[in-house]
Amino acid sequence: MARARYTIGIDFGTESARAVLVDVSDGRELGVELYTYRNGVINEHLPAPNDDIVLGSEWALQDPSDYLETFRETIPPLLRRTGVEPSDVIGIGIDFTACTMLPTTLDGTPLCFLDAFRREPHAWVKLWKHHAAQPEADRINAVARQRGEPWLERYGGRISSEWFFSKALQILDEAPEVFRAAGRLIEAADWVVWQLTGVEMRNNCTAGYKAMWSKSDGFPPDAFFASLDPRLEHVIDEKMSRRIAFIGERAGGLGAPAAELTGLREGTAVAVANVDAHVSVPASTVTEPGTMVAIMGTSICHMVLGDRTAAVEGMCGVVEDGIIPGLFGFEAGQSAVGDIFAWFVENGVPAEYHERARRRGGDIHQVLAEEAARLRPGESGLLALDWWNGNRSILVDTDLAGMLIGMTLATTAPEIYRALIEATAFGTRLIIDTFEAAGVAVDRIVTCGGLPEKNRLFMQIYADVTGRPLRIAASAQTPALGSAMFAAVAAGPDAGGHASIQDAARSMAGLRDEAFLPNAACRTVYDDLYGEYVRLHDLFGRGGDPAMKTLRRIRREALESATSVPG
Amino acid sequence: MARARYTIGIDFGTESARAVLVDVSDGRELGVELYTYRNGVINEHLPAPNDDIVLGSEWALQDPSDYLETFRETIPPLLRRTGVEPSDVIGIGIDFTACTMLPTTLDGTPLCFLDAFRREPHAWVKLWKHHAAQPEADRINAVARQRGEPWLERYGGRISSEWFFSKALQILDEAPEVFRAAGRLIEAADWVVWQLTGVEMRNNCTAGYKAMWSKSDGFPPDAFFASLDPRLEHVIDEKMSRRIAFIGERAGGLGAPAAELTGLREGTAVAVANVDAHVSVPASTVTEPGTMVAIMGTSICHMVLGDRTAAVEGMCGVVEDGIIPGLFGFEAGQSAVGDIFAWFVENGVPAEYHERARRRGGDIHQVLAEEAARLRPGESGLLALDWWNGNRSILVDTDLAGMLIGMTLATTAPEIYRALIEATAFGTRLIIDTFEAAGVAVDRIVTCGGLPEKNRLFMQIYADVTGRPLRIAASAQTPALGSAMFAAVAAGPDAGGHASIQDAARSMAGLRDEAFLPNAACRTVYDDLYGEYVRLHDLFGRGGDPAMKTLRRIRREALESATSVPG
Repeated sequence: MARARYTIGIDFGTESARAVLVDVSDGRELGVELYTYRNGVINEHLPAPNDDIVLGSEWALQDPSDYLETFRETIPPLLRRTGVEPSDVIGIGIDFTACTMLPTTLDGTPLCFLDAFRREPHAWVKLWKHHAAQPEADRINAVARQRGEPWLERYGGRISSEWFFSKALQILDEAPEVFRAAGRLIEAADWVVWQLTGVEMRNNCTAGYKAMWSKSDGFPPDAFFASLDPRLEHVIDEKMSRRIAFIGERAGGLGAPAAELTGLREGTAVAVANVDAHVSVPASTVTEPGTMVAIMGTSICHMVLGDRTAAVEGMCGVVEDGIIPGLFGFEAGQSAVGDIFAWFVENGVPAEYHERARRRGGDIHQVLAEEAARLRPGESGLLALDWWNGNRSILVDTDLAGMLIGMTLATTAPEIYRALIEATAFGTRLIIDTFEAAGVAVDRIVTCGGLPEKNRLFMQIYADVTGRPLRIAASAQTPALGSAMFAAVAAGPDAGGHASIQDAARSMAGLRDEAFLPNAACRTVYDDLYGEYVRLHDLFGRGGDPAMKTLRRIRREALESATSVPG
Repeated sequence: MARARYTIGIDFGTESARAVLVDVSDGRELGVELYTYRNGVINEHLPAPNDDIVLGSEWALQDPSDYLETFRETIPPLLRRTGVEPSDVIGIGIDFTACTMLPTTLDGTPLCFLDAFRREPHAWVKLWKHHAAQPEADRINAVARQRGEPWLERYGGRISSEWFFSKALQILDEAPEVFRAAGRLIEAADWVVWQLTGVEMRNNCTAGYKAMWSKSDGFPPDAFFASLDPRLEHVIDEKMSRRIAFIGERAGGLGAPAAELTGLREGTAVAVANVDAHVSVPASTVTEPGTMVAIMGTSICHMVLGDRTAAVEGMCGVVEDGIIPGLFGFEAGQSAVGDIFAWFVENGVPAEYHERARRRGGDIHQVLAEEAARLRPGESGLLALDWWNGNRSILVDTDLAGMLIGMTLATTAPEIYRALIEATAFGTRLIIDTFEAAGVAVDRIVTCGGLPEKNRLFMQIYADVTGRPLRIAASAQTPALGSAMFAAVAAGPDAGGHASIQDAARSMAGLRDEAFLPNAACRTVYDDLYGEYVRLHDLFGRGGDPAMKTLRRIRREALESATSVPG
């Protein structure tokens, strides 16, 4: 029997990073290490000693030191605790939140590491959920529409304030000296790979999904950037790169400083950077069209593969080779799912249910789900629109808000809890229907993320509402596993790794045995309710009734009049 | 100085009755006695030993013994504790919930007192909130529309399942032997007056508001009743009476048995029976057009006086002399107000607020109202439709349900609490606007009932939303005071009472000093929000969007399929 070979995958999340050490032959996870970022999400003021610098309300920054610290804090203990020899670790791969980006010098030093820029918020990492660049996103969309930019269709007709050029343009607008000083503007994903290998190498996944790049057309033309701002005209050639590496490729070998930091051997294969949601697709066994991967947590990312491109209303993006080489990767999403349930548990559930959970030593969600599971579909008379954090797909409108209809004096908290779950399931079904209407098949669903394993009711409702069988990925940390799989591909078969991500998926990824199958009787009732959901969705979401926009306007005016009161 | 004279008013409520002894000269309340009905609201099964008889889900009965017991349990202690001589009590008046009705023998013995009918639910008192006669109400409305009955307009175009003939017809439909045995079908209000005086005497208030009688036209024609059911053709002459006494008149003198029961003197003036909401109008000082009396508790009754009749959409009824002799009395209502806040506190408020209330030894509503008072109008971005118990005015539709729109992940319980208060205020404003559109002026509002004194935020929001000044009636028990005032009128000036209810109101009724005046800035924002409320009200309430009806249908089907499962 051949000597066992291992790879390490590191998933850089929002509050923490997670590293997993995996057996390349069967995907067995020998060990996991978590590192919680010291400076976490920076959204009120810069870290001490610069904590007198206060941030705006929609800001969210990170400290690149936390990424470097992740390597130091996770890989040496992982080797020590598993007893695996560094020589048996054939590759390392990372995935990251996106778009999370930063300005650096030409040699890759983050501007926020420099004394001159330490107190300048725009010199720090802009985290994916930094939402202060909406005016810039609006400008990009307006100019792109005006110029008839063909790439706009690949992003469902609108790009987000979270994306690369919205954030880059905000730096230029608000801190032109930071923009000028930035030799590079780069995704954090690519920056950490650069720190590992010593070589700047950008990945096609973030370039495609967040920076409007495509394999066939490259980036938007310079003339487009010039129309946004003359100083932006040559941003690609001056501060980025037209050389894009593909996921699954080897970015380089581990450099001496990184080898010292991690305890791994110099030259160990480092995979091209990837994105958390995207890397979860093969980690959930999916490498072919027809199966949706739903990454279910605070929000849901919906990932589907297709043989050809398609214009899907309100999707986040379609990128050739963006998820699996050789296929088109489609992404859509719901901006709040677990977040809605968490909001409800925090703000809308009376003490008796919390008390019951405490007495049983259980979780409040379990108590609510148990009660809610006793209800038949439709029995509560409730229906919700799941827009507590706006609507990402298919309406792409952050100004939309939640709605609940059908309450009586007999309505209970578990009934509302179930209606909220159902609403998010209807949202997913509408995304599936929109994919299928555009010719992208979704025959079954594989789920991963935090929610599926916690909440069986949630899973059954999704099966009943969508009419598709649901499975759960075997790994509890699909992103880190996915990164370890891409690391095995980057190492290649000669080093004991895999020839392709498909091969890696066959060997290293798996599903849990249990399946959630649609119940025909429930599905009939849900078809009925879904009809109501779609009508109300279109009524409030497509401008038929202006209530949500008007309430948002009145709210904004009320807050402005409040802040304008003297004293 | 003349010797002081007193009257006693008794308010027969849903769970209990309250008697107050009042000084006729100035309305001073010398004492109050409460009697909680032994059998309360009978809505699950008959009282023991007949508790094997189970009632349907919409049933609500009462035991007439509890009314007689009220006299025994309240009047003697009231005399004893106040030290008032029976000879100084010049009158007694009662008000009742309505329509609360019962079948009796010709001599007034309730059929449920007879062994033959004791186990027959239809022989008991049907309480106002007995809702099992909806099919009968539907039949009455259909036949009335078909025949073009002119009285239908006086009731906003539709009569309720709560009213007299809906309940009478249900007895006929489901227990024809009870109907046959009933020598009389009578309002409980009139029945208790009969027990006091020994003489059957029916009042024009319940006849007008609940039994389609009017001063000019009397009852609907026999042919109408015959169209409903041939056995009903002569119901007025056989089981009711065409002789109707007017409120403010003397029904008779206290009979010997009642004098013995109460300790009052035989011959003491007994006023014609009245209804709780209606008797509250003069007790709130209002005896002229232009001022709305809002009786605010679990629901709201809106009472307005007019010089002439008018067709007001969705009002409960207009009755000439129905509230104040010489004027037309208009009634409208919202079916759940305090009930919605109570539902929310019970089902939607997290433990921390309850905990805060407990630490302060205060009320949960106070804690929520304090937080909600810090918000500016419109700041929450929320808007609700206040239909948790359907809509009484102006849509007259029990199938409608509640709605809340505008939730985000930052929405808090106090924000929802405020949105619910605002929604009920918008409902009241729409009723006012509907009255004014029909030519019935509402320049100011006087409130009474349980809510106004408890919740200052509630009062200020109503002033801001309606743009009218709000006052609060001085008495904490306006119905009982109103009955005592009508007792003083029944006794008349010769006995030391009053010549008219206007005179009685001037002497005996008052308002609290404090006034809630509309704030102009808040009103502007509320005008904006009210526009949204009215549009959504019409959208969901007038058939523009069928969501509420469809959800109700799906709910009914789900419950039916659940009950049809064997085992």
